[in-house]
Amino acid sequence: MTTFTAVDPRTGRPGQEQFEEATLADVRAAAARAARAFRAWRAAAPGGRARFLRSAADRLEASRATLVATADGETGLGAARLNGELDRTTAQLRAFADIVDEGSFVEAIISPADPSAKPPRPDVRRMLVPIGPVAVFTPSNFPLAFGVAGGDTASALAAGCPVVVKGHPSHPATSAACAEALRAAGKETGMPDGVIDLLQARGLDAARALVTAPEMRAVAFTGSLSGGRAIHDLAASRPEPIPVFAEMGSLNPVFIAPGAFSARSAEIAEGLANSITLGTGQFCTKPGVVFVPSTDASGRAFAAAIAERVAARAPGLMLNPQLHAGLKEKLERTRALPGVEILGGNEVKESGALARPGVIMTTDLATFTATPALREEYFGPVSVIVRCPSAESLIDVAGDLEGSLTATIHADAADSDWASRLSSTLTDKAGRIVWNGYPTGVVVVWGMQHGGPYPATTSAGHTSVGATAIRRFLRPVAFQSTPDALLPEPLRAANPLGIQRLVDGRWTKDPA
Amino acid sequence: MTTFTAVDPRTGRPGQEQFEEATLADVRAAAARAARAFRAWRAAAPGGRARFLRSAADRLEASRATLVATADGETGLGAARLNGELDRTTAQLRAFADIVDEGSFVEAIISPADPSAKPPRPDVRRMLVPIGPVAVFTPSNFPLAFGVAGGDTASALAAGCPVVVKGHPSHPATSAACAEALRAAGKETGMPDGVIDLLQARGLDAARALVTAPEMRAVAFTGSLSGGRAIHDLAASRPEPIPVFAEMGSLNPVFIAPGAFSARSAEIAEGLANSITLGTGQFCTKPGVVFVPSTDASGRAFAAAIAERVAARAPGLMLNPQLHAGLKEKLERTRALPGVEILGGNEVKESGALARPGVIMTTDLATFTATPALREEYFGPVSVIVRCPSAESLIDVAGDLEGSLTATIHADAADSDWASRLSSTLTDKAGRIVWNGYPTGVVVVWGMQHGGPYPATTSAGHTSVGATAIRRFLRPVAFQSTPDALLPEPLRAANPLGIQRLVDGRWTKDPA
Repeated sequence: MTTFTAVDPRTGRPGQEQFEEATLADVRAAAARAARAFRAWRAAAPGGRARFLRSAADRLEASRATLVATADGETGLGAARLNGELDRTTAQLRAFADIVDEGSFVEAIISPADPSAKPPRPDVRRMLVPIGPVAVFTPSNFPLAFGVAGGDTASALAAGCPVVVKGHPSHPATSAACAEALRAAGKETGMPDGVIDLLQARGLDAARALVTAPEMRAVAFTGSLSGGRAIHDLAASRPEPIPVFAEMGSLNPVFIAPGAFSARSAEIAEGLANSITLGTGQFCTKPGVVFVPSTDASGRAFAAAIAERVAARAPGLMLNPQLHAGLKEKLERTRALPGVEILGGNEVKESGALARPGVIMTTDLATFTATPALREEYFGPVSVIVRCPSAESLIDVAGDLEGSLTATIHADAADSDWASRLSSTLTDKAGRIVWNGYPTGVVVVWGMQHGGPYPATTSAGHTSVGATAIRRFLRPVAFQSTPDALLPEPLRAANPLGIQRLVDGRWTKDPA
Repeated sequence: MTTFTAVDPRTGRPGQEQFEEATLADVRAAAARAARAFRAWRAAAPGGRARFLRSAADRLEASRATLVATADGETGLGAARLNGELDRTTAQLRAFADIVDEGSFVEAIISPADPSAKPPRPDVRRMLVPIGPVAVFTPSNFPLAFGVAGGDTASALAAGCPVVVKGHPSHPATSAACAEALRAAGKETGMPDGVIDLLQARGLDAARALVTAPEMRAVAFTGSLSGGRAIHDLAASRPEPIPVFAEMGSLNPVFIAPGAFSARSAEIAEGLANSITLGTGQFCTKPGVVFVPSTDASGRAFAAAIAERVAARAPGLMLNPQLHAGLKEKLERTRALPGVEILGGNEVKESGALARPGVIMTTDLATFTATPALREEYFGPVSVIVRCPSAESLIDVAGDLEGSLTATIHADAADSDWASRLSSTLTDKAGRIVWNGYPTGVVVVWGMQHGGPYPATTSAGHTSVGATAIRRFLRPVAFQSTPDALLPEPLRAANPLGIQRLVDGRWTKDPA
């Protein structure tokens, strides 16, 4: 039996509780249970799923104090942040319960029969149905909101898909507590055994076995590019390939217009310093590169202004020893790059075993363009300020970047034409475009898009945050000439659920 | 310079016109033109795309006589079928023009700012935008409706994505004529050069180069399982993986309930004989296997009744020599299988060089289950009637089948409970469930779903026919705190396009 423990980021010492590494037999059993649960769930009314999600939210809320303490001991994120994350987690569970109850997420489309058409048209009614068991891989940086009871799990369960979570080994006790809340909620609300399962593992064997288990129908992953790509490739090579919705972080470029740069560079420097160091820079939406239209001197001054503000903050904790060592090593390699200046970060005022200070770098556009290492994400409180010779060159470099989760534009009224052209270019490069703000702090609202072109995700057509995250785990089915009593409720003539439907090309809640 | 020709299925002789095989340089140039066209198109109003699609429909209609004659010479499908297919093709182009004009396909979701929320919520507005240049691979069996100006092209262009088509080598002159209509329509309506391109190739090099061209953002494919899977694997292995929407045909199982079997087996036999031989069985929705609850004697009698009706029909033409030879060979291998009886198809009344008669096979459920070859698609007028010992065994075998585009249930009122349980099982196995009908004849209506779990497609979450086919080529983007004048029109406060939007969780056409 192999076991592992978490590490306390404040002390660097291993936690006391030993967690058993999931075996291949554990993975097979979980996948089989999920498949059985899916068959049982298909026949059940969706209302049960909504009660299940709300009960899970209530149970997490009820264990708030211990949950936050447990997560804090494993991640060092602090009580304020973790309480906020728990708020978000319960809000997500309840929001998806509301979406299930509201019912329109099945995207019902009804094309009535037309016997007079040539050839005559039968009655065709289409809706979305659950895809089947989903594997969820949770990241290190959101132990609750993207954790075992986080957004991926909530949206998959809301869709009607049983979930097998591979918990991140950085915070196994937090994962176990969340799984327990879900399991108890499932039992209380009469859900079949196997709608939620947790596999704890540090090694890769269990992860590989879960992705290749024939019962699994989709994977949701949040984490690194290398991890997400490996899972994507493995899933694509299965005898029956399955979709992988991997959200892998990104550069999140920020573009500052000439007008905004002259008018309020101090204010923007302050905002960037906050956004870069928030959560010790361990957000997939951390601004990793900032393009400024500047002379050499004004660009350096701007970088220095951010660096000064960053240096004034106490170094934050990295989530685990691997991230801590990886960032340190990557910054050492960066120091050897010609044309890149590193401001701050030399003097490590250690405020904990895994502490890392913020680091601001600056370079010119030609060096940025010629240096691939600068276009890779630094996971931590690090950002590079790129001095660009003209406003036009910002639009050009925007067109050359890879995909990102976000792109940010700082622009004033005078910058409007430039900003409009830049926004058009960025629409092809990012999942969310932020105006005069900062990309960190992904609000959970209906319209949120948290995704983007590769390498931000492996599936640019979808989101992992917001109401439409449920769409990942659904597939359309059409019912042709089906007797009304045998149709699923969302498609019945009387519209018993009272949902919004597209009937003969017209949106309505009327019977059809 | 390599060239190739079509083959006339009636005579088996090569056509007179030589077509140049696209070179790698041709592929690279087409991909680069498509990328340039995409950049130009992004700034243009969608109304132009609608005019373009309608002009293409008008031009195809204007050249109906020559187009049908050209396609008939290359496919042997006959004027009646090809005229119907052209009707469908122009209807599809016009339907997608209507969808562009109506505008709701962008799925606008608006979450207004809420400064009183904790943390305060910014204004977030989300819509779908075009994914970028799309590669379309057309099949042999629908030279028009799934051809160069077919549904994949129409839905990609409607989405705002330039298209590079790899035309099927069975009908190059038909492909060229359709491309010419699209090009002329694009010119007439002011579309940028490169919104539509055609590559003609018999070899695989051009196909591979198109799938791996860095400019391409998605692939739509209709054809064989081996071809679709190869393209899926190649696209997944790109440095930047892209989605492949491959529709690869399937078994399309038919299930007959005990009540329906006693009450109207003769009528069903007639319907199946029609559906199996329609288009010489070269439809991806041809019923390839029929499960009947029967004694050995009644099952054999049913198979014989279908075979008799099939034998009474003149053999149809296969589309090309490869399909003709492949089917013959596959049937010869089938003759060697123990426990499988083949009815008809021995005596080939040749009505043309590439003619093939219909073939009905019958076997028992145990043999079907134990014989993998019987669960593979026979592309042609071939179907296997499986004698099942009980009504319950039909539900069991339904649960063991791989994914299909369609599944069909014949059931009467007395079969209702059984049919309901079977339908629930089939919902997980097929993209469309047909009641008391036949799966061939995919009507082009808003609610149509033409897709299904692997191996029917590589992307069960989408459809290649119907209004929602456009969703394949779109991805969501959110605009946060964006000045109204800089928002795309579908998201502006006044709702200038008058489209249906989800505002703060409520469907409305009101301003927001």
